[in-house]
Amino acid sequence: MTAPARGPVHEALAAQPLVDHHCHGVVTGNLDRAGLESLLTEGAAWPGISPFDTPAGVAVRRHCAPVLDLPRHASPDAYTARRAELGAAEVNRRFLAASRTDVLCVDTGYAPLPLTSPGELAELSGGTAYEVVRLENVAESVARAGVEPDEYGAAFRRAAEDAVRRPGVVAVKSVAAYRTGFDLDPARPTEAEVTGAARRWSAAGGRLSDPVLVRHVLWTAVDLGLPLQLHTGFGDSDIRLHRADPARLTDWLHLIAGTIPVLLLHCWPYQRQAAYLAAVFERVYLDVGLTLHHVGPARARAVLEEALEITPFRKLLYSSDAYGPAEFYLLGAVSFRQGLAALLQDRVDTDELSLPDALRIVRWTGSANARRLYGLPAETVPRRD
Amino acid sequence: MTAPARGPVHEALAAQPLVDHHCHGVVTGNLDRAGLESLLTEGAAWPGISPFDTPAGVAVRRHCAPVLDLPRHASPDAYTARRAELGAAEVNRRFLAASRTDVLCVDTGYAPLPLTSPGELAELSGGTAYEVVRLENVAESVARAGVEPDEYGAAFRRAAEDAVRRPGVVAVKSVAAYRTGFDLDPARPTEAEVTGAARRWSAAGGRLSDPVLVRHVLWTAVDLGLPLQLHTGFGDSDIRLHRADPARLTDWLHLIAGTIPVLLLHCWPYQRQAAYLAAVFERVYLDVGLTLHHVGPARARAVLEEALEITPFRKLLYSSDAYGPAEFYLLGAVSFRQGLAALLQDRVDTDELSLPDALRIVRWTGSANARRLYGLPAETVPRRD
Amino acid sequence: MTAPARGPVHEALAAQPLVDHHCHGVVTGNLDRAGLESLLTEGAAWPGISPFDTPAGVAVRRHCAPVLDLPRHASPDAYTARRAELGAAEVNRRFLAASRTDVLCVDTGYAPLPLTSPGELAELSGGTAYEVVRLENVAESVARAGVEPDEYGAAFRRAAEDAVRRPGVVAVKSVAAYRTGFDLDPARPTEAEVTGAARRWSAAGGRLSDPVLVRHVLWTAVDLGLPLQLHTGFGDSDIRLHRADPARLTDWLHLIAGTIPVLLLHCWPYQRQAAYLAAVFERVYLDVGLTLHHVGPARARAVLEEALEITPFRKLLYSSDAYGPAEFYLLGAVSFRQGLAALLQDRVDTDELSLPDALRIVRWTGSANARRLYGLPAETVPRRD
Repeated sequence: MTAPARGPVHEALAAQPLVDHHCHGVVTGNLDRAGLESLLTEGAAWPGISPFDTPAGVAVRRHCAPVLDLPRHASPDAYTARRAELGAAEVNRRFLAASRTDVLCVDTGYAPLPLTSPGELAELSGGTAYEVVRLENVAESVARAGVEPDEYGAAFRRAAEDAVRRPGVVAVKSVAAYRTGFDLDPARPTEAEVTGAARRWSAAGGRLSDPVLVRHVLWTAVDLGLPLQLHTGFGDSDIRLHRADPARLTDWLHLIAGTIPVLLLHCWPYQRQAAYLAAVFERVYLDVGLTLHHVGPARARAVLEEALEITPFRKLLYSSDAYGPAEFYLLGAVSFRQGLAALLQDRVDTDELSLPDALRIVRWTGSANARRLYGLPAETVPRRD
Repeated sequence: MTAPARGPVHEALAAQPLVDHHCHGVVTGNLDRAGLESLLTEGAAWPGISPFDTPAGVAVRRHCAPVLDLPRHASPDAYTARRAELGAAEVNRRFLAASRTDVLCVDTGYAPLPLTSPGELAELSGGTAYEVVRLENVAESVARAGVEPDEYGAAFRRAAEDAVRRPGVVAVKSVAAYRTGFDLDPARPTEAEVTGAARRWSAAGGRLSDPVLVRHVLWTAVDLGLPLQLHTGFGDSDIRLHRADPARLTDWLHLIAGTIPVLLLHCWPYQRQAAYLAAVFERVYLDVGLTLHHVGPARARAVLEEALEITPFRKLLYSSDAYGPAEFYLLGAVSFRQGLAALLQDRVDTDELSLPDALRIVRWTGSANARRLYGLPAETVPRRD
Repeated sequence: MTAPARGPVHEALAAQPLVDHHCHGVVTGNLDRAGLESLLTEGAAWPGISPFDTPAGVAVRRHCAPVLDLPRHASPDAYTARRAELGAAEVNRRFLAASRTDVLCVDTGYAPLPLTSPGELAELSGGTAYEVVRLENVAESVARAGVEPDEYGAAFRRAAEDAVRRPGVVAVKSVAAYRTGFDLDPARPTEAEVTGAARRWSAAGGRLSDPVLVRHVLWTAVDLGLPLQLHTGFGDSDIRLHRADPARLTDWLHLIAGTIPVLLLHCWPYQRQAAYLAAVFERVYLDVGLTLHHVGPARARAVLEEALEITPFRKLLYSSDAYGPAEFYLLGAVSFRQGLAALLQDRVDTDELSLPDALRIVRWTGSANARRLYGLPAETVPRRD
């Protein structure tokens, strides 16, 4: 075994507490092998195809097993047995602590299983948690509560304003990518259009997926004034990947230029398209969350290389997009730290980048960019550099 | 010259007989320089632009020349002279044998030139050959034989059932990517729609390219119950590359979930999109055949890295997609073995992957995944590991 | 600091004078920090996000500072101070000379700022300059001069014929990617269609962006018979990136096969799609200009690796697409030389490519492909190899 290359950039990233600007809760209950496997994949656990036999599964056995006092590359059975032995609370605490995340911005809008609250995540990590409001959930609550179609637009807006006024809310999020994709008419829908669409939705039921109402969600985000996190690219089978290419947002980004910051989440395999948007629109930012733990440290550098090919260094953020198993908090952080360190240290070693510049990029992408964008307090940990 | 890195994974891949789950016959006659050049490219041999001056041409001179007793990097003229001297039969035997392929699944549906039959390929390689039925060919034979439009649907289905009932047939294939691309209505066409489309086709003649009939081919494959191989991505100038992005199949993949396995062939440059589909749909698999010999060993690792970024390790298969010159059998195999070995050995060397896991991935992707999927007998060669 | 790998390919590229087949003028006046920053990015200089804090900005400080007698990685302020001290004329002379470009094909159709003429560029570089005529400019001049809608088609054609007849004109260019993207009806528009579209344009004013007139520009290029340079992929926020994917030109490329050479410029992030087109269409060529200086030497090799994955070696050209700051002439050339040298030398070192083949690829892509295509005189510099 060759020791991985190490240098001052690796040390800086190891020492850098991360701001995870987009994540979810972790499962509070114990997970048996089947339960854990079902959460290791954006697909499912299929007969004869264990989610442990994927890049993410291999990375869990490699990087997470030692945190549970197991040897690297422990078997799936040994791993899940040890997980059960320690119990969910201890497992969750260990992974959150090991991730060295000191700020978490938690999307509370997706919880098919019992998950930790932002407060519980903060306690587990020893950091601070903020909340991200998923706007489609707000809209669907309004619809479920019963509202006349011609009242829907105003009712949704009031509910969204109430939701973001709660303490600790720093951003809103939309899953428009899942509902319609980005081939939308970019214009703000008229009140009459919203009423008509609300009438159709009211008759049809189900989740919010009418293109007019999806546009209305995006434009309501503009009115709310908070940063908007947008799922783009990679996700579960509910996505139509090509319609989640963030380049398809360009017309809308022109229309909203000068208003709210837009955070492109995940992006893979369209990280270059996202980088283009971040390079030409003042208020567009990106991360490669979710991707990082699915590709694992073995490919995190490659994905980050593409994401940073033309991206201004103040435009890349860190997120884990961890959801479900606490392992993904660690794996996201390890992938980001190792991938970015390898990328930057290599540029320093070949003199393409000065060391002080590399260290600035570490601080910016790992923490300062998110703090500035969301208006969070500056990092308080004493720093050497 | 630096010796390429070697390790136990390289040895395992060198020793691993391959299952080539999608390939074609090789030209039985002698090929002069012009004849060989015209088959080295998905384009053509153009004035002043020799197909030897491409990544594939360079790889032929590097990796195939020694098999013909020539020095590495032999000139195109020396190469074709030696090829003529040995004669097609000997050349074909050498390359097939050197590829160490012990199972070949042969698409017999494309043969503008006289090609070896599956039986002849089996003899040349010392392995076993199976057959893949190209459904568009079956449909076009039915149409050529003359059929009333309202009988076309049933007649095609009967002919396809007859074709796949022949001994040795293990899969069907569609070239829908070439005919319409994947922006199709995903729904099964009604009988009336098929009849209407058959009437239009009957009047217009030509090859099967009506969107309704292309959809009908895909749904007939579902009824046949055999694995379906789908050309995606890269091909000759007849392709509209962006419409061959397999992500555009998502709606259809949802409709057929739980039925037949779908094998995404080639995929480049959409190997990440294909990987996404393989990660979220139980019965979707992929390979990077055709791509491997066109990019050559110099880039095979890079393409495989992307193809494996999130793909479950039981979902990648090997194919050469060799057609025409027997060189492509060797080149596909060399590219796969060297590319995958470099990728896996590097992960073992950096301790991202355990050696036993790497060796399992070698066996799975090189042989076992295809054997399981197509119901082929288990590997019989004695194995050390 | 590790010294970058060096070898005979690096030496050959260092010695190879480049033909820059697509570039623009440099700003003739002095640039203060704000002026320089605004030209370093395809976006803009935004509050708190300096264009120096991008891959291109880092590369300028690394590779351009020494040309101005500053240490590597000089600060932006030191850099702009020294730039002012030397004055624009001296700065421009140094960068053009350092780029070792001996032929420049200059697109004179974009000049929102006072720029050097082709003749001035030739003098600065010590080389020869030719001109590329931007067809949309010709059309817009015709419209501005006033023309009856039914005369527009003929008047544009006459003006274009006049423009390309001027001495030194070697090619035409279209920015159709910016105006409509490539999802165009590929057919040549009829005279009646052109007249109707010219009438609408005449009424609406503004720049040429009617789909019929954009198609008419492309077909007029076919009639003119000169090589056509097409902007594809990456550009400023005016682009809809996904609609600038050159694969979307396939239908049109089929219709014009056998007529003019088509040069796909920039291409990123669709360099693989462009490579596919260059591999299957006789008269399609590509470069990765603009991209090279925006990603810098740190990623130039990666982009070139993809661009060359299947591209015939006679189909890749060099361009800087430098516009504005003279730094981009140097940065494009350095990125190309270092990226291609690393790629080729590595293949030579692993014996995937012979050294004579590598040296041919250097000469072809750096100079000979463009000279042949544009009918320029052969290189006159005495060569060793």
